[in-house]
Amino acid sequence: MIYLDYSATTPVLPEVLESFQQAVIRFPGNANSLHKLGMESRKLMQQAEKQVAVLCHVKEEEVIFTSSASEANNMALKGVLESYQNRGKHIITTKLEHSSILETCDYLETLGYEVSYVSVLENGQVNLEELASLIRKDTVLISIHHVNSEVGVVQNITSIASFLKTNYPRIFFHVDGTQSVGKIPIDLENIDLFTFSAHKIYGLKGIACLIKKKNVNMIPLIHGGKSQTEYRSGTPAVALMVSLAKALRLALEELESRFSYVSSLNKTLRECLVNIPGVIINSPEDAVPHILNISVSSVKPEVMLHALEEYDIYISTKTACSKDNSDSASLLAMGKPHSVSGFSLRISLSYQTTQKEIQDFLKIFEKTVSHFQNELKK
Amino acid sequence: MIYLDYSATTPVLPEVLESFQQAVIRFPGNANSLHKLGMESRKLMQQAEKQVAVLCHVKEEEVIFTSSASEANNMALKGVLESYQNRGKHIITTKLEHSSILETCDYLETLGYEVSYVSVLENGQVNLEELASLIRKDTVLISIHHVNSEVGVVQNITSIASFLKTNYPRIFFHVDGTQSVGKIPIDLENIDLFTFSAHKIYGLKGIACLIKKKNVNMIPLIHGGKSQTEYRSGTPAVALMVSLAKALRLALEELESRFSYVSSLNKTLRECLVNIPGVIINSPEDAVPHILNISVSSVKPEVMLHALEEYDIYISTKTACSKDNSDSASLLAMGKPHSVSGFSLRISLSYQTTQKEIQDFLKIFEKTVSHFQNELKK
Repeated sequence: MIYLDYSATTPVLPEVLESFQQAVIRFPGNANSLHKLGMESRKLMQQAEKQVAVLCHVKEEEVIFTSSASEANNMALKGVLESYQNRGKHIITTKLEHSSILETCDYLETLGYEVSYVSVLENGQVNLEELASLIRKDTVLISIHHVNSEVGVVQNITSIASFLKTNYPRIFFHVDGTQSVGKIPIDLENIDLFTFSAHKIYGLKGIACLIKKKNVNMIPLIHGGKSQTEYRSGTPAVALMVSLAKALRLALEELESRFSYVSSLNKTLRECLVNIPGVIINSPEDAVPHILNISVSSVKPEVMLHALEEYDIYISTKTACSKDNSDSASLLAMGKPHSVSGFSLRISLSYQTTQKEIQDFLKIFEKTVSHFQNELKK
Repeated sequence: MIYLDYSATTPVLPEVLESFQQAVIRFPGNANSLHKLGMESRKLMQQAEKQVAVLCHVKEEEVIFTSSASEANNMALKGVLESYQNRGKHIITTKLEHSSILETCDYLETLGYEVSYVSVLENGQVNLEELASLIRKDTVLISIHHVNSEVGVVQNITSIASFLKTNYPRIFFHVDGTQSVGKIPIDLENIDLFTFSAHKIYGLKGIACLIKKKNVNMIPLIHGGKSQTEYRSGTPAVALMVSLAKALRLALEELESRFSYVSSLNKTLRECLVNIPGVIINSPEDAVPHILNISVSSVKPEVMLHALEEYDIYISTKTACSKDNSDSASLLAMGKPHSVSGFSLRISLSYQTTQKEIQDFLKIFEKTVSHFQNELKK
């Protein structure tokens, strides 16, 4: 099998699964219970919390475990906006966000909130001048992803964050870092809210995290009794939290050397793909090397996907979470025509990907493209 | 160790953990992905969905996996009320509900919803006459638990459900079954929404379920792309879903014989406890045998809890999820004075509990009570 869909989800590292299992077996108590068994579970939870806090350079009370990045994104947007509705009802985001941001914004509009979408330049970067011009007196929250899931564009969130903190300190800045954590360094200094998920960093599905700075108020999405934090109720899933902390620690190890290695894989791919007739490379050169978006002229993405599947090769047509099979929203936003955005494929790489896998993939990919191109000529 | 806090949480069955692990290892794909690996994960998820549906006698599309019962309760209340706000803004519930219902109701009041709390009789049963009298033209939802977590009172939800369906077919009926599933049979025929959680039935923490009948509309709590159902977004945690289905199947096996066995343990407990001076039994005779609520006159529950802990015995002061250390809300609602409701302990049993554990517990419990009673006399 050649798995090149790491941006959809990653295989779970054996040591992460092991840490989950050990926690399940050795810490059976409910972390909300007052007795020793409960306290032991609570202590373990707090260790996981602390580990995440240290790795993210934030305070322990700023770590909120959620069940998914989608929950974290919903919580951040709905919870902050509801909490600050006296300040205004205006949000700014982009069309390149994950569906859990875009659909939440659509929903918020039904409640009377106003959403402005800042456009992106041809290279996928947020148009910073336009962003500044969209800010209004009633703007409460700006939500911009760190790395785009379809194309791999890296937004300069550090400079957006520092621009906002300097000029608009009352506006909250949320960053969806689901596709950046474990790929590139993160700096949360001027970021108020930050989302990431375990299953994109070789962790388990069902656990994610919202970092929420102390100064930010937020109405919970899930009300109830005491739990990991006052912002999210429910019996703490301690073993899942432990496994997330472990996955995060491992994901941040060797970040640089792994980045270089994946860059070399990406280079090999680009050098070869650019010579295949009908193949267009959509990801800009400065996108993360882990994501390479391409289009195959006139061949439907699903057709390519299933043809490659026959060889036990797995890539993706845009993001796994998009709602329908229409054009790639990210490529459309980048100004690409339908002939590109309607025919896009996402190859996503990992430090676990081998050079041999890339070579084997390229051989079969070239053969497959050429087969379909010949079919079209008939 | 003598663990008598099964209503707070249960140890995970090895075969449930094993099913989780196997699913994690053998099904690495994202169930939202279009390729074969994704489809295999999706198929596994649908099997889990089907298994739960068959066990609950509902349709597959009526099964919504959530991360906790708290999430399911929040989703049911907020989602249904928001969806039907044109019908009215009135809810009826009881003071004996879990904090995820009570706190959600408090929150809903801040949004302009009106909450009526139907009182309970001395035996903890909902006052059905009063319930009928509280129903208004703008009542949208009634939410009543099946088994109370603190005292073990069983509400006659089947007759409430059929009363509502006959007389008020437009009112939705939500039942929090977190403490009933695996203890007593459930019949969801006239129930519109039903909550339960895996970690109360020897499953994993971090996975639960809301059964929502097809005829009920509901605004999602978590918006986003496609997922297990349109009502909840986020990458499906397939292995957790599989483990819930497994835990549910095992919990519903031998329900009757296990009930009889736990009844015999409860009988032993009651017969002995009733003879210990200063001990008052609060759970009515017809409560589930799995939960026995008692008060120890003039001895603070925390003191008893920690004294027993010294002997590696774990029981609970009321429910693990309550917000503070005040009186038991359930006992107060049942009309008990502070001398009872402020001094309550919950012993909760399992089919895994042995007669020897009960005997050992009773010996130490009696000794401990007598020690504190003597202290008080000094």
